[in-house]
Amino acid sequence: MSEAYFAAAVQMCSGESKVANLKAATRQVEKAAQLGAQVVALPELFNCLGRTEIMLQEAEGIPGPTSEAMGRLARRLGIILVAGSICERDVEAGKVFNTCLLIDSSGQLQARYRKMHLFDIDLPGQVSYQESSWLSPGDDVVAVPTELGCFGLSICYDLRFPELYRRLIEAGAELLMVPAAFALATGKDHWQVLLRSRAIENQVFVVAPNQFGQPTPQFTAYGRSTIIDPWGTSLAVAPDGESMILAQIDPGRQQEIRRRLPALAHRRKVLERANRQD
Amino acid sequence: MSEAYFAAAVQMCSGESKVANLKAATRQVEKAAQLGAQVVALPELFNCLGRTEIMLQEAEGIPGPTSEAMGRLARRLGIILVAGSICERDVEAGKVFNTCLLIDSSGQLQARYRKMHLFDIDLPGQVSYQESSWLSPGDDVVAVPTELGCFGLSICYDLRFPELYRRLIEAGAELLMVPAAFALATGKDHWQVLLRSRAIENQVFVVAPNQFGQPTPQFTAYGRSTIIDPWGTSLAVAPDGESMILAQIDPGRQQEIRRRLPALAHRRKVLERANRQD
Repeated sequence: MSEAYFAAAVQMCSGESKVANLKAATRQVEKAAQLGAQVVALPELFNCLGRTEIMLQEAEGIPGPTSEAMGRLARRLGIILVAGSICERDVEAGKVFNTCLLIDSSGQLQARYRKMHLFDIDLPGQVSYQESSWLSPGDDVVAVPTELGCFGLSICYDLRFPELYRRLIEAGAELLMVPAAFALATGKDHWQVLLRSRAIENQVFVVAPNQFGQPTPQFTAYGRSTIIDPWGTSLAVAPDGESMILAQIDPGRQQEIRRRLPALAHRRKVLERANRQD
Repeated sequence: MSEAYFAAAVQMCSGESKVANLKAATRQVEKAAQLGAQVVALPELFNCLGRTEIMLQEAEGIPGPTSEAMGRLARRLGIILVAGSICERDVEAGKVFNTCLLIDSSGQLQARYRKMHLFDIDLPGQVSYQESSWLSPGDDVVAVPTELGCFGLSICYDLRFPELYRRLIEAGAELLMVPAAFALATGKDHWQVLLRSRAIENQVFVVAPNQFGQPTPQFTAYGRSTIIDPWGTSLAVAPDGESMILAQIDPGRQQEIRRRLPALAHRRKVLERANRQD
């Protein structure tokens, strides 16, 4: 069992300027590291959030300018950096993905996760968004062993699909990452509830850095970045605006909860077989 | 699409006396029907809750005295009655189950659901309980078509297992029943969060009648019976004590939410295949 450590989630107000976004990310990640965080997570689309045409134009390869800048930052600070997500242009595949990067403390890209569930919604007057019109979904569940334990990667809208988190737990995840640009209209009613439920039902820590603000007139992000323990207690919640939250991740607490209430061992195989015809 | 109707959840303070419990259940069900409820749900182990040896001694066959009394009550009031659960003694199988009964408005037993996940927990000084030491688990997912729509049945501890509710949705459930005797020690942190999450991620109504009080010195039930809409909003929540809550179930609202945010259509088949080896 690894020792207790501190994790941080950075809440950003990203816009369309990559220079400004990378500067803000660097400022908050440095602050987190100074306070002792050994792992820091940035939100979804942290390096460019705005109009679709701008995000497409600013899409990058991996490796690319953003992944390299984040690699240098992680190495300089000696932290694990979960670079929330960026628009990844895969030239070979001719596709663009919404991709989360996990960079180790030596600055090496250790894993990438491409968002599996794309956000399509139509709430007139509140939020209307068709992510699937310009992005391709990933197909792979990604749980990454690190020196601090195994991290399960997911992005924003994935949060609505409990089956992804069951697969991450089965793949060994001990902590779930949920970088997001979760909308205000849905987030005010769903964000905290779903995050806490994923923590409770899987008895894992959850680190969920969200965007805050209004990158376009059509989209407002909810904020309230949160770190949750395996009992479902919110250990830290961000106020409005750019901010950074920090909490202790104690694997001993997780083991104790799982020993006292062995719910994961009570899962029934008979429920794993899908009956879906679609 | 069926029309909007009212559903009620009865919060009970059941003890070991069947006579007293059936009287209390009848009183509250009558009240709900008088107020216009077309479906009424009772909590888990509503007819006898207390020491294990007493619950075993009071276990009944189905049909049996409790199912017959509830059948007469449903027919007299012309309501669908979800008789939370009772200890069912299956003489042929030589087993005892924790079984939920769905009785139609003509008083006929339409379906039974045997609790699939048994509650084993050890929180010293708070709650210690080993349900699997005296009950057998059921193996079947039960979604029941009724004149008011298809109801998915579950009981208490099942709530921690999102895969059961996915299977119920796939079987056609439009409303989830979660009768419970959810403990205070876990319920204060988990009950509302998990109920709302099941409603949100499955975009269904949830009707969750809970027990309240202290049937034995070792067990305190949390109460806070709740009815939730498919957006995750708590439409009604019970205060402490014996009580009855009522809320409108509007299938039109459910359809609208699913049309605007088609999350169920976004489930990924690739996540349905279990990787579990155990």
